Amino acid sequence: MIKVGIVGGTGYTGVELLRLLAVHPQVQLQVITSRADAGTPVSQMFPSLRGYVDLVFTHPDQAHLEQCDLVFFATPNGIAMHQARALLDAGVRLIDLAADFRIKDITVWEKWYGMTHACPDLVSEAVYGLPEVNRDKIRQARLVANPGCYPTAVQLGFIPLLEAGVIEDASLIADAKSGVSGAGRKAEMHILLAEAGDNFKAYGVAGHRHLPEISQGLTLAVGKPVGLTFVPHLLPMIRGIHATLYGRLKKDVDLQALFEQRYANEAFVDVLPAGSMPETRSVRGSNHCRIAVHRPQGGDTVVVLSVIDNLVKGAAGQAVQNMNIMFGLPEATALGIVPLLP
Amino acid sequence: MIKVGIVGGTGYTGVELLRLLAVHPQVQLQVITSRADAGTPVSQMFPSLRGYVDLVFTHPDQAHLEQCDLVFFATPNGIAMHQARALLDAGVRLIDLAADFRIKDITVWEKWYGMTHACPDLVSEAVYGLPEVNRDKIRQARLVANPGCYPTAVQLGFIPLLEAGVIEDASLIADAKSGVSGAGRKAEMHILLAEAGDNFKAYGVAGHRHLPEISQGLTLAVGKPVGLTFVPHLLPMIRGIHATLYGRLKKDVDLQALFEQRYANEAFVDVLPAGSMPETRSVRGSNHCRIAVHRPQGGDTVVVLSVIDNLVKGAAGQAVQNMNIMFGLPEATALGIVPLLP
Amino acid sequence: MIKVGIVGGTGYTGVELLRLLAVHPQVQLQVITSRADAGTPVSQMFPSLRGYVDLVFTHPDQAHLEQCDLVFFATPNGIAMHQARALLDAGVRLIDLAADFRIKDITVWEKWYGMTHACPDLVSEAVYGLPEVNRDKIRQARLVANPGCYPTAVQLGFIPLLEAGVIEDASLIADAKSGVSGAGRKAEMHILLAEAGDNFKAYGVAGHRHLPEISQGLTLAVGKPVGLTFVPHLLPMIRGIHATLYGRLKKDVDLQALFEQRYANEAFVDVLPAGSMPETRSVRGSNHCRIAVHRPQGGDTVVVLSVIDNLVKGAAGQAVQNMNIMFGLPEATALGIVPLLP
Amino acid sequence: MIKVGIVGGTGYTGVELLRLLAVHPQVQLQVITSRADAGTPVSQMFPSLRGYVDLVFTHPDQAHLEQCDLVFFATPNGIAMHQARALLDAGVRLIDLAADFRIKDITVWEKWYGMTHACPDLVSEAVYGLPEVNRDKIRQARLVANPGCYPTAVQLGFIPLLEAGVIEDASLIADAKSGVSGAGRKAEMHILLAEAGDNFKAYGVAGHRHLPEISQGLTLAVGKPVGLTFVPHLLPMIRGIHATLYGRLKKDVDLQALFEQRYANEAFVDVLPAGSMPETRSVRGSNHCRIAVHRPQGGDTVVVLSVIDNLVKGAAGQAVQNMNIMFGLPEATALGIVPLLP
Repeated sequence: MIKVGIVGGTGYTGVELLRLLAVHPQVQLQVITSRADAGTPVSQMFPSLRGYVDLVFTHPDQAHLEQCDLVFFATPNGIAMHQARALLDAGVRLIDLAADFRIKDITVWEKWYGMTHACPDLVSEAVYGLPEVNRDKIRQARLVANPGCYPTAVQLGFIPLLEAGVIEDASLIADAKSGVSGAGRKAEMHILLAEAGDNFKAYGVAGHRHLPEISQGLTLAVGKPVGLTFVPHLLPMIRGIHATLYGRLKKDVDLQALFEQRYANEAFVDVLPAGSMPETRSVRGSNHCRIAVHRPQGGDTVVVLSVIDNLVKGAAGQAVQNMNIMFGLPEATALGIVPLLP
Repeated sequence: MIKVGIVGGTGYTGVELLRLLAVHPQVQLQVITSRADAGTPVSQMFPSLRGYVDLVFTHPDQAHLEQCDLVFFATPNGIAMHQARALLDAGVRLIDLAADFRIKDITVWEKWYGMTHACPDLVSEAVYGLPEVNRDKIRQARLVANPGCYPTAVQLGFIPLLEAGVIEDASLIADAKSGVSGAGRKAEMHILLAEAGDNFKAYGVAGHRHLPEISQGLTLAVGKPVGLTFVPHLLPMIRGIHATLYGRLKKDVDLQALFEQRYANEAFVDVLPAGSMPETRSVRGSNHCRIAVHRPQGGDTVVVLSVIDNLVKGAAGQAVQNMNIMFGLPEATALGIVPLLP
Repeated sequence: MIKVGIVGGTGYTGVELLRLLAVHPQVQLQVITSRADAGTPVSQMFPSLRGYVDLVFTHPDQAHLEQCDLVFFATPNGIAMHQARALLDAGVRLIDLAADFRIKDITVWEKWYGMTHACPDLVSEAVYGLPEVNRDKIRQARLVANPGCYPTAVQLGFIPLLEAGVIEDASLIADAKSGVSGAGRKAEMHILLAEAGDNFKAYGVAGHRHLPEISQGLTLAVGKPVGLTFVPHLLPMIRGIHATLYGRLKKDVDLQALFEQRYANEAFVDVLPAGSMPETRSVRGSNHCRIAVHRPQGGDTVVVLSVIDNLVKGAAGQAVQNMNIMFGLPEATALGIVPLLP
Repeated sequence: MIKVGIVGGTGYTGVELLRLLAVHPQVQLQVITSRADAGTPVSQMFPSLRGYVDLVFTHPDQAHLEQCDLVFFATPNGIAMHQARALLDAGVRLIDLAADFRIKDITVWEKWYGMTHACPDLVSEAVYGLPEVNRDKIRQARLVANPGCYPTAVQLGFIPLLEAGVIEDASLIADAKSGVSGAGRKAEMHILLAEAGDNFKAYGVAGHRHLPEISQGLTLAVGKPVGLTFVPHLLPMIRGIHATLYGRLKKDVDLQALFEQRYANEAFVDVLPAGSMPETRSVRGSNHCRIAVHRPQGGDTVVVLSVIDNLVKGAAGQAVQNMNIMFGLPEATALGIVPLLP
């Protein structure tokens, strides 16, 4: 049994980790921390977990995380970087669901996240936890930077095209749409039902923190810097990301075959039949990314449609997938959840 | 392995049965029928099932249902009653998710459902599949009438009070609210997103088909006819039923203890701590019914709040629970699904 | 032209007042205050008002409200009571959309609102602004207590029955459902889209502040104290209240005629034809209350269905209606807004 | 008074025309037709119109439309073209809210709409009713082809850039999102609340009927054929279109000034301040189009955000605007509706 700790378990990625780990046959949930809610039973805050999780939130100071085999950080940005070294030194492996270790260029990270990084050397060591790209490195990693939700959906959609060199890489467009759970469980006005419900808008057009993360990943795929315009939008629904990706073709290839081959051995990337248009609900609650590729009117613009559940493949599910890889378990352990439809 | 057939698999109870049975360790999905969609792969109609269900919809005439151990009818009302006898004669056990076998009084059934019943004798034999009331009979049953969604939520809420004789039974009130999936997967105007979304209304105030089913169950619980006013409402959401039940107390009892004792051994009825108010999302996708009992301002009106997922405990989940009982499996097999929240 | 000031204009009742008053032919919007957003153009916070409202939020200290003919308080509870006397002394008339002047019994008010009342004598003077009951008093009033949203929907539904003495008044039940805008424009967790969306629950079962307000109104209608159980619920939508009201008949009367006669001369109470079930969207954005009365299965339980837009007839619209009455204008001035459907 | 008839009044554009025309001071609603619902009072089908519209649906054969000054066709595609000539010959002016007269190239129209056009000569005569482009022609028109919803939002966003020649016109991208009311009031499965709610997907990627209409308009703006990729998506909400438009800059210009100047005299096109991101709800129920223009990271990709209410500026509101122009009324008559927010 893997002894698991969760730091910061009162947000949506925290409760989603609990949903997945509560029925994981190889995991023993050891401790879950919350500064504000220490002493509260987890199932009191989240009645959906009644009967599945008996833990009480523990104050971080009394968590004894060093006794865990693995600790997930489901915390705001800038927390994990202060605790990582001590835990690694104690032999604990870490998966950070926040952004502290995602971006290799510290200057870029500090600019977008507005703080000084506490441990740049660990950023170098950290493995970016996108299994479809980095599976082998993840296996050995002490410290995994779990990708962001938009970056997961966008990279999985662009990577086959960029690796194969079939689209111009200077003017990529990612028009992405996310349910509001992506904004986290925070008391903020703009994500009230009365504000975000029955409404739709773009945000972060001038620059969103996921832009440098996506750019880094695409740059690695193509081998040189790419040009990317990324426009996120807020959907009047809870879960789900839909990325609509546009690129200009520079070669005539069988796009369907290209995608099917790239993901032939991937359990969690499902390339739909030609002509399909994936719905976000087709992955609701599951760790799948479903992708379709189109070439409208046979022109030179390729359109990729990529959907994930932002809290699963875009956060907690991918983290569990990474854990399974790190500990040598079958990669899909505890992730065989049939999506909830309708 | 139990060889299972599903008749009428293109509706919401059908796809929900598939979601549950696809990962049931003791079930072999043999056949699923659809007259209109014969030949279509199930996962083409429901991409959420890609990778989980490889079946193709079979025309009813070619289904060889008699080779199954168990057949679920996820059909409109009035279908199962025409096929039940032949299947029972062939040694197949049946669970009907529609209303054909729910109401013992044939005259009442024919009035509310507007058709002549094809096999009144089988109605006598059929066991009403509410495990919390009829577990022992279900175990032996050849033919189970799976309860309706409103009747499940309302009966589970009223039964402890009526069995204990603590409320007046002549003027019960059930104010119930359901998500639109309860209306089924049918192309009807009133359940369009543009009609039912951002909107709320009562319906069937003059009389809803679930009224006689609920009355029958409550009458059995109390031992004599009850008086019930049942007002259903349509919620602008997909899944979930919330029943708010009102009764007049005639004895001073510990209501909390009464409920906790009645359901102490029930895996799928969760009596919440005193003062709680259950949310529909706390059971989203799961087979639980969560119940709270209140006595506002210490007056003589008792208020019970009862929530279920109408497609799970209100339909497919309860059907699988009944199947588990019928075949001697642990009752919760394949039903250990953590609710999806948020 | 009536010179109008609004205190506390950044909440939902504030912006709704602006929507209505911006096109009122007899109103000159003089000033709108906000402590936190002083200096911000109103249309910057609410782009829906671009082209209609040119005002900038003014700090309360610089508002010169005493130069207005009428001031609306769209503030939290407990604000208006501190400013009322000075304004009244300056000859300004007031409409308070909060609860400061709604409840005549100061002890009751202080218990439910948890504060000491600053001006009990003004509570005595204040007129409860339900035009269908108090029109004549409103005409002369210096100070109007605008009713709460639930109280408006519930009172308009029960009053015909109670005034006529046709139902037992000791065990009234009001099962009410409200869209989340009723909770105000506040950064609170439970009204996030990711919490309240796709979800339904009761709240305040043990006691909600609108209970004493409703009880007071019903008591006045019947001439002696009534017994009322009031259970509010939160709907996964933005606007709209639906009250489902239950009473036990003690006389056999023509209920449809009773309601039609009671409201025959009311512009904003629409009694629907027998058998109707009003939808909340049928009053979306308008000042109407639509009501239907039922007697299911011809039993002795009467069911009244009453819908309003909580922000219009339940708040800002009723306030404008009261203003029109106070200033001798046609009561429907600026309230002839066709509901938005779909 | 303008005597107005409406053909096909039971859809969403029909009821929206009624909402607007019921309070239009210069309009006398003469007749509204419906083949299926002849004899039904309009306000019975749409209770939101109780008190505003007293008409009963009339069978088309008894409508005497030739006695109207103006007839709106709120019918499916392919109806108006069969009735237009007789009405025009009788001196009636026409506004078709469907697509019969929108596309000048009959071959293109017949390909996309799958029928033979009944009156190609009237297509030549018809004026495309986008006032911001064709105001003068609309004034004199006998026959106005009211633009589609997507085409309105997309054209208003691209036109300033194309007229000024500042973007490459060979690779335009329009990523558009629409609420479900855009699909009409039809009993179809994919727009059920249980299907389209809490869900998001693209559709029509291979080719949508609005593509040739948009291309025609953009081609006119730039003076030569443009290359356009148009991907529509279905939003889980009722009203509103958000178009996110991408173009490659070929000149360095002040984009904000360009847009402000182009629409300086337009009452219904609102160019937001630099840096803004318009929400669909900011135009809910109103005839405005709100637009913002961005140049992310100062790169060479320009992003335009354009929102309308698909049923107002995208259909019925624009039709009334066209009527006002045709009859010499102030263009905003009856269109001064403040958007409904929240």
